[in-house]
Parts: sequence; C-alpha cells; structure tokens
Amino acid sequence: MNDIEISQAATEAPITEIAGKLDLSADQIEQYGAVKAKIKLPVTGDASTSKLILVTSINPTPAGEGKSTVTVGLGDALQRQGKKVAIALREPSLGPVMGIKGGATGGGYAQVIPMEDINLHFTGDMGALTEAHDTLSALIDNHIQQGNELNIDPRQVIWKRVIDINDRALRQTVIGLGGRTSGIPRQDGFDITVASELMAILCLSKDLADLKARINKIVIGYTYDKDPVTVADLKVGGAIALLLKDAIKPNLVQTIEHTPAIIHGGPFANIAHGCNSVIATKSALALANYVVTESGFGADLGGEKFMDIKTPVLGKTPDAVVIVATVRALKYNGGVDKNNLQEENLAALATGSENLKRHVTSMSRYGVPVIVAVNRFTSDTDAEIDQLLAYVKDELHVQAFDTTVWANGGGGALDLADAVVAAADEPSTFKPLYDSDDDLVTKMTKIVQNIYGGRDVELEPKAKRQLKTFQKQGWDKLPVCMAKTQYSLSDNAKALGAPTEFTIHVREFVPKLGAGFIVAMTGNVLTMPGLPKHPAALDMDIDADGKITGLF
Amino acid sequence: MNDIEISQAATEAPITEIAGKLDLSADQIEQYGAVKAKIKLPVTGDASTSKLILVTSINPTPAGEGKSTVTVGLGDALQRQGKKVAIALREPSLGPVMGIKGGATGGGYAQVIPMEDINLHFTGDMGALTEAHDTLSALIDNHIQQGNELNIDPRQVIWKRVIDINDRALRQTVIGLGGRTSGIPRQDGFDITVASELMAILCLSKDLADLKARINKIVIGYTYDKDPVTVADLKVGGAIALLLKDAIKPNLVQTIEHTPAIIHGGPFANIAHGCNSVIATKSALALANYVVTESGFGADLGGEKFMDIKTPVLGKTPDAVVIVATVRALKYNGGVDKNNLQEENLAALATGSENLKRHVTSMSRYGVPVIVAVNRFTSDTDAEIDQLLAYVKDELHVQAFDTTVWANGGGGALDLADAVVAAADEPSTFKPLYDSDDDLVTKMTKIVQNIYGGRDVELEPKAKRQLKTFQKQGWDKLPVCMAKTQYSLSDNAKALGAPTEFTIHVREFVPKLGAGFIVAMTGNVLTMPGLPKHPAALDMDIDADGKITGLF
Repeated sequence: MNDIEISQAATEAPITEIAGKLDLSADQIEQYGAVKAKIKLPVTGDASTSKLILVTSINPTPAGEGKSTVTVGLGDALQRQGKKVAIALREPSLGPVMGIKGGATGGGYAQVIPMEDINLHFTGDMGALTEAHDTLSALIDNHIQQGNELNIDPRQVIWKRVIDINDRALRQTVIGLGGRTSGIPRQDGFDITVASELMAILCLSKDLADLKARINKIVIGYTYDKDPVTVADLKVGGAIALLLKDAIKPNLVQTIEHTPAIIHGGPFANIAHGCNSVIATKSALALANYVVTESGFGADLGGEKFMDIKTPVLGKTPDAVVIVATVRALKYNGGVDKNNLQEENLAALATGSENLKRHVTSMSRYGVPVIVAVNRFTSDTDAEIDQLLAYVKDELHVQAFDTTVWANGGGGALDLADAVVAAADEPSTFKPLYDSDDDLVTKMTKIVQNIYGGRDVELEPKAKRQLKTFQKQGWDKLPVCMAKTQYSLSDNAKALGAPTEFTIHVREFVPKLGAGFIVAMTGNVLTMPGLPKHPAALDMDIDADGKITGLF
Repeated sequence: MNDIEISQAATEAPITEIAGKLDLSADQIEQYGAVKAKIKLPVTGDASTSKLILVTSINPTPAGEGKSTVTVGLGDALQRQGKKVAIALREPSLGPVMGIKGGATGGGYAQVIPMEDINLHFTGDMGALTEAHDTLSALIDNHIQQGNELNIDPRQVIWKRVIDINDRALRQTVIGLGGRTSGIPRQDGFDITVASELMAILCLSKDLADLKARINKIVIGYTYDKDPVTVADLKVGGAIALLLKDAIKPNLVQTIEHTPAIIHGGPFANIAHGCNSVIATKSALALANYVVTESGFGADLGGEKFMDIKTPVLGKTPDAVVIVATVRALKYNGGVDKNNLQEENLAALATGSENLKRHVTSMSRYGVPVIVAVNRFTSDTDAEIDQLLAYVKDELHVQAFDTTVWANGGGGALDLADAVVAAADEPSTFKPLYDSDDDLVTKMTKIVQNIYGGRDVELEPKAKRQLKTFQKQGWDKLPVCMAKTQYSLSDNAKALGAPTEFTIHVREFVPKLGAGFIVAMTGNVLTMPGLPKHPAALDMDIDADGKITGLF
C-alpha cells in the first residue's frame, strides 16, 4: 500500500478521545468534523517539567529524508512506552502538494491522519492567511488610489501579494493597469503564502493581543521621503488581526497510532523561519510531558532558526535534538546520481556523510544532546547501515539508531525513543549562537561560520545601502532570518556534501518588523516556487463516492 | 444595539439541536465548532410536497433594502407558525465585508448567527474556491511554460485569476515577467472569487460526479488555431474537483430564533448567476416542508437567473415569489438624494414605485404568485407605508404587507407568512421565459423586453465576432447569464426608476461551458469591484479577548 492507501485504511479515534489524552474536555476544543479540531485559547497547564525534542535533518535531496515520518514515528514510540506525548508539526502548503514534493504528513505507518484533509485546506488556516495578506495589499493600493494621504511611494511598496500555490508566472507582475479607476500602475509580485510575514507573525505570536501588536508593526513600504510606513499608519491592524481570529488557534489531529498531533503554522524554512507556531508548541508543552516537534528543511535552515528565532520567543530550549539522515540522501550528497541510489555504494556514503557531520557539529554547539536517526529504506544494505551507524558513533561521538517507522510505526523507533528520553533528562546547557546585541553582519557571519561551515558573508550593493538605512532606523540588531537554498550548506544549490571556504552572498534584505527579524535574501532563492513539467496535480483524482487517489 | 451586538448577545442552540429540527442526526453532519456544521452528502428525504419560496427585491440602492433580513424574518415567522422550515442563503464574500456593503447575514433580530464567522471565512468554502481556481490558473501557465503541448495561445487564455477581495489594482495586470524561468509574459487580470466559473459550477452541480464533469468542460482559452482548450485537455479535472471536496457540502447554521439556515455558495447576481447552490436548495427541500431562499440583487438579475438558470437544474420551480421593497429605496428611485431619505416625500415615493411595478410585472409573468413585502424602517411615515401598500394592492393587484423583522424577528412577518403559505398552496402554473432552443440573441431580447422593460439588445463588434464562433462551436443555444449593473433595470447604473425604450449593449461574451451558460458582459459592469475611500476595514477591531467590533 502507498501512503494514502495506508491513511485511508487506518481507523481514526474520535477527536474527543484524542483530546482526552491531553486532558482536554470536549468544551476546550472546536470540532471540525469527527477527527479534526481546533484547541480553544488560552491553553493552560504545567509545562515546567515537560521535555521538548526537536527533529531536524541533513540537507534535503530528491531522495527524500523522511523527517516528518521520523517525527511522527518517534512520537508514536514514546506513546508506546507509556509517555504522555504530543507531536507538534507544521501545516502543509498546497504549493508542494500540487507540485513535486507532495504533502507533509509523514509516511507509511508513521503518518498523521486524515492526510487528505491535512494536505488540502485542513481547517482553513492557509486560506485565512492568504485572505488577510491580500486584504492588506488591497488596502495599500486603495490608500494610494484614494488620495495617498500617507504619501506612500508606489515604487517602494515592499508588501507584495501572496497565493498558496506554486505559480512562477506571478513572481513579477505589473498591476494597476486599465486607466484612472483601476489603480496606480506599479511593479508588484506574488510570494507563496508560507513566505508571508503574517505566517511568521502567526507562528511567533504569544496570543491574539501580541498578534495584533505585531501586525501593526509591519512595514509595508516607504514614503516619497523614504520614511517607513506601517500597518498602524494605515489603521487596519484590527481588521487584519480579525481575519486571523480562528487561524491563531492550534489544530489537533492524531497519528495512525492515535498519538495526539498539534499541527499549526507552516512557514518554509528556506524563505521564512521554518517552525510551527509558538502557540502550538507552548500548548503541547502545557498539555503533554514529551513534545516532539520538527523544523523545516535541514538543520542549517530550520534547525538554526528554531534555536535562534523561535527559542527566545518560546522561552524554552530543546532538551534533545534528533538529526534524521538516510543512506540514500547521503549517497546523493556523495555524488551518486538520483537514479542509482538503490545500489550499494559505501564509498559515496562515506563521502556524503560529511554533510551529516556538519549538521551534527552545528547542532551540538548549542549545548543540547544530539542523536542521529537513520531512516531506513528497503534498498539500504546492512553494510551501508552498519557503516553509517559506526561512523556516527566512532567519528562524531553521538548516538545513532536505525529506525523503520515507515513500515513499523512507533515500533520502528523504540531504541531511539529510549535514548531521547535519557538525553532529555540531562540538565540543559543551552548556549545561544549570537548575542541579541550583535549587529546583522556579525549575526550572519556567526551563522555562516558555525552552522554552514563557510567563510564569510558578502553584501551586494543593494544590501549595503539597506544596511545603512537600517542603522538609522535602529533595525540593525534584530535577529536575522536567512533565506537560502535548502539543498546546500552554501548559497549554491549544486554544492552538495560539506563545502568549505565559501562566501554567502546577500542580495538584499527584507525588514519584517512584525515578525521581529530581518530576512537576508541570499543566492537565487525564490519566494515563489514553480511547478514541474509533470505536476502531481495531473495524477490526482476523486471519484463519485469521494475516494481520493494520487495524493502523496 | 447594532447588528453585531445583537448577534453577540444572542444565545445559540447547539448545532446538533438545529440539525435535529431537520431530522438530521449528529452522524449526518460534520461539526465546525459548536454552532456551525457541514451536512454530509447525499441528503435524502421526500421533497415531493415541499414548498419553495423565492425572496427577491427591487433594484438595490444605497438606502438598503433588507432582502436577506426579510428572508430570515419570513423563515422565522414560518417557524413560529409551527412549520418545518429551512432558510437557504448565499455565503458572503469577503470583498463587500471589507468594503462598503458589509456582510450578508440579515440584520437586527432577523439574522443568521454567528455573523462574525459566517462573514469571515465561515467553513472555508471561499478559500477553497479561490485555491482551486488559482491552482488551475497556475497549471495553465505552467503548461505553456513547460513546452505547451496543447498549443495554447497565451493571448487567448480566458481563464483569469481570482481573489476574494475588492482589489481594483488587480483588474488588469501583466504577468510572467522576470525572464526565462518565470513564465511567459502575457496580459491577465483578477476577478473576485464569486465571479469564478467554479463558483457557478459549485452552485449548479447535483453531486461530486457532476461537479467533476462540469469542471472538465471548462474552456480555459484557445489554441493558436482558435480551437477551444478545456480542463479535460489539461488532465487536471480530478485535482480541481478534489480541492472542492468539502466546499461542495452545504453549511448549516441557525437564525437568532433557532430556525435552521443552510448557507452555501455565493455568486454575485450582477456578474454571475446569483443563486445559492442547487445542492443546498435540494437538501433544504428534502429536509423541510417550507424552504425560504433568496436570489442576489434585484428581480431583474437574481430573480431572472433563478427562474431561467437555476430552476431547470433544480427540477423545481418556486411556489411563491416575495419581492422586498422599502419606502426609502423607492424614494431614492424617485429622485430623492440619499441624504434626504428620512423626510416624508409621497410624490417621490409614487414616482419611484414604478421600479417596484416593473419587478412585480416581470416576476408575475412566470406564472408564480407574487407578494410584496415592505421592509419598514423607523423613519418611514404611516402615510408613506399606507400609500405604498395601497398602490401595490390597487394598481398592481398583488398582496402587500409591511414587515418589521429587523426589530421583531419572525413576529414582524406573521401576516406575510400566512399569505405565503396560502399562495404556495395554489397549483403551479410556471411558464419559462424562453425556449431552450432559442438562440442567444433571442434569449437576451426576451430578457430585456420582458424582465428589464427595455427595447432591444445591441452587440458591439467583439460580441458579434464571438457569436459567429459560438455558432460554429454549437454554443449559441446555451442559457445566457447577463452581467449587468444591479442599480438600474438598464445597463446604465444612473437610470433609476423604470426606464423604457432602452437598448442593452453587449460588450463581449464569456463562455462558461462548465456552468453551462454564456455570460453576456453589458455596459461597464466590473468582475472585480474596488474599495471605497473609507473601507469598512478601517473601523474593524478585535480585542485581546476576541471581542469583535465594526463588522456589519
């Protein structure tokens, strides 16, 4: 059976029963059908002794790493061992679902269900974010059209539009054509919804009041005098917050093994900060004793941003970090063509393992116990698995386990779960990567040298000019959110393995004052992906009885 | 108290209790929180003796007519009289909510609740429609980008993009800029979501299979050889239908008096066909003995389209038609400035009543009993009300009642309800306006002469050229959906009252093969509205406890 068939064959427990496992009564949730719910806010509970486990990975490859699958399987394993556990994941974006990557609900017997619903619209959060973002866009252009009291320079509007679809044709547009009644002609473009600052804000807000306060701080552009214009200036912070009144509530579903899963917020980690919401993680910590969460893409992106952007807001650092690797992906990093990954290749595995080493080193520097989970594929040979486990233990000096959660659910990660529980019991010695007082260049340099394993950062002319403005505005000491390709530790997607001595090129900065960070755009990273030659959409179908095929 | 305060002060019954009034068990609905639900499909029940009451109105004015308010109040009145009743309404679009018109949930003590939820995202149908529409848009541009196997002419793509916001700056755009990897540059534009053919399809489909079959028939544009290209040609009908798997299910809420209300689908009647979904109306007829439904804008638009487009698919004609009028709106039609409507003006009322006469005449020709409901405002004088009621009874020879549902809920429409019940018991003598075999020009001419009270139809050159193509394609005998200003019986928004001897100018046609009709674009009607100088969004707010203000 494939993922969707396994999901469809699974028996779901009523969501009230799943809520009960977290001591949530039916009154404390809002049901969305029988097997989905939103959790009402505020969530209360004692989180003081709860353990937070962060799952991250090596750089993603076309081979697939299975980070969500291991996250779900580890949660299921902890539940099998009698722990009170909650999994905290990000919400899938429709873009990858319709494109090439597929959904984001795990795989095999380590899935959150119902995968069709979670991957398609779910409880409407993505739609609400899209609407809220584009309502603000419409209000900005309307303000300019109706007299432009704030003196907004149409050439300097930085609040683009968004859509939750991979649509390359919308990356660069000209809008406002058609004459006097149809707006002011200007350049504009669309990002994918998960890149919206509103998504970052939703994921970093502590509550509704914080959400509104952050929305009011968003810089939407500049006046003709180059002064920043905020949402507060436009007086529409209340309306935009209102449009997110339900989206701010975390969603509750379950795994195939009926482990509670809180799925909420889903910024990509390459173009945004890559972590599920602070509200969801905080809620999970209040409701369960063990929380297994994941960050997006590799440890260089989602992992770093979890530690440096999310953790300070969350007020809690991870008690253990699990890094997911696969033999296939490491062989790919070692130079094997993606069509030959099923053949044993110990030499390529050894070369590619440098990528894993880099991530183990970078995560270890935060002072949190690191454990490697090898997500086993059927084509992996025993010799490959043995070599990889031995390398991690003997050369990297951290624990490593092979896991088989796709085939066996929680039963495929019991050893890993034991090790995670033991590691999480060690006292925390968390060391932040940078001081909040460091300037932007210092922060980026520390990320490049300590996380990416590179040499330095180079600012292109536009970024240099912006930096001077930021110093005047007092924005130059905010945290930095690196927008970088997920495929390489460097800003060159083709530099696999563990490149060294490279420079990260910052093309431009995008100030995100509501989120509270500055995005540094590096290399050619796109904030609007494209669809492939054969999009997944072509193979999807639904029959007259509602039976779905082709989702993955 | 204003509308939102009344809504917030109301006590909601659990949605399971409302479902119970329609003999729906908890298993037959999917709850969305405690007071909203989707009804699972298929809905079964005996509709053979159920009565269908259509509520329509005079041409809308800035004074407000209160058609939804009367629809809700009439439903409540029928419930007070012990009838098993369901109200069937359209879903609000976010565009007017954020703009100037406000929401669409009735008013005062004749409201559907919770109005904040229904007006904002509701159960996600609008978001799903937007996503589905724009996914198709992205797949079209991607097809062209990736080799264009179907030979699609980028200058002849007629499938635009949509967004559920009033955004004039998106009416006319250029997309695909930015070089080789970012699409093919071409002209494009955005309509509001309610103008999407997918909305029309959702509202005219009998079930999921019909939905998919209709989606596959959509014409998205033409090849370089001028042949139509359909969704079936693109092989993505399954994926697009899949994105609407939940949106196709009707939504259940309640009025302040706990009358069941099924709210589903919401095309505007000026730019689309203006009726709630066939599935919702059919479900209501199967579940209740009396169904009160409304069509959009005036009887010239929503009324005509209900009779000529929806009725043939529904397989049921209305048993009675209620036309809503207000003294204020008729005085406005009689030439009174909108700032002076609170002053008694019997002469202007007499002049403006010609507008009501036109609608009574046009609806009466369908052979269905017509009743006039005067929605009384506090500023109306007794003399005005008496004059209007006497005019309708003595000159137009139909029954008329003044109603006070805003202030009194169902108690304000008891007489109207009695008359409606009696009228609906008369045997049906429905006479269609045109033969399905009539060609497009004949159909339009019959609409203009019999419904609008005008003289003829004139086709501009582009429309003439299209008509020749349509004859070749065999599309020239489809039903016609007139896209016309809602403010006048003519295509000139400023011609109030009851103009005569006018010509309707058809600028162009838009074939909607999935919906099964041809849209005739007349005058300057816009498929993307704009925001006003002071959008409603500026006055909206939500506080730290989630209390909402400024929605109306």
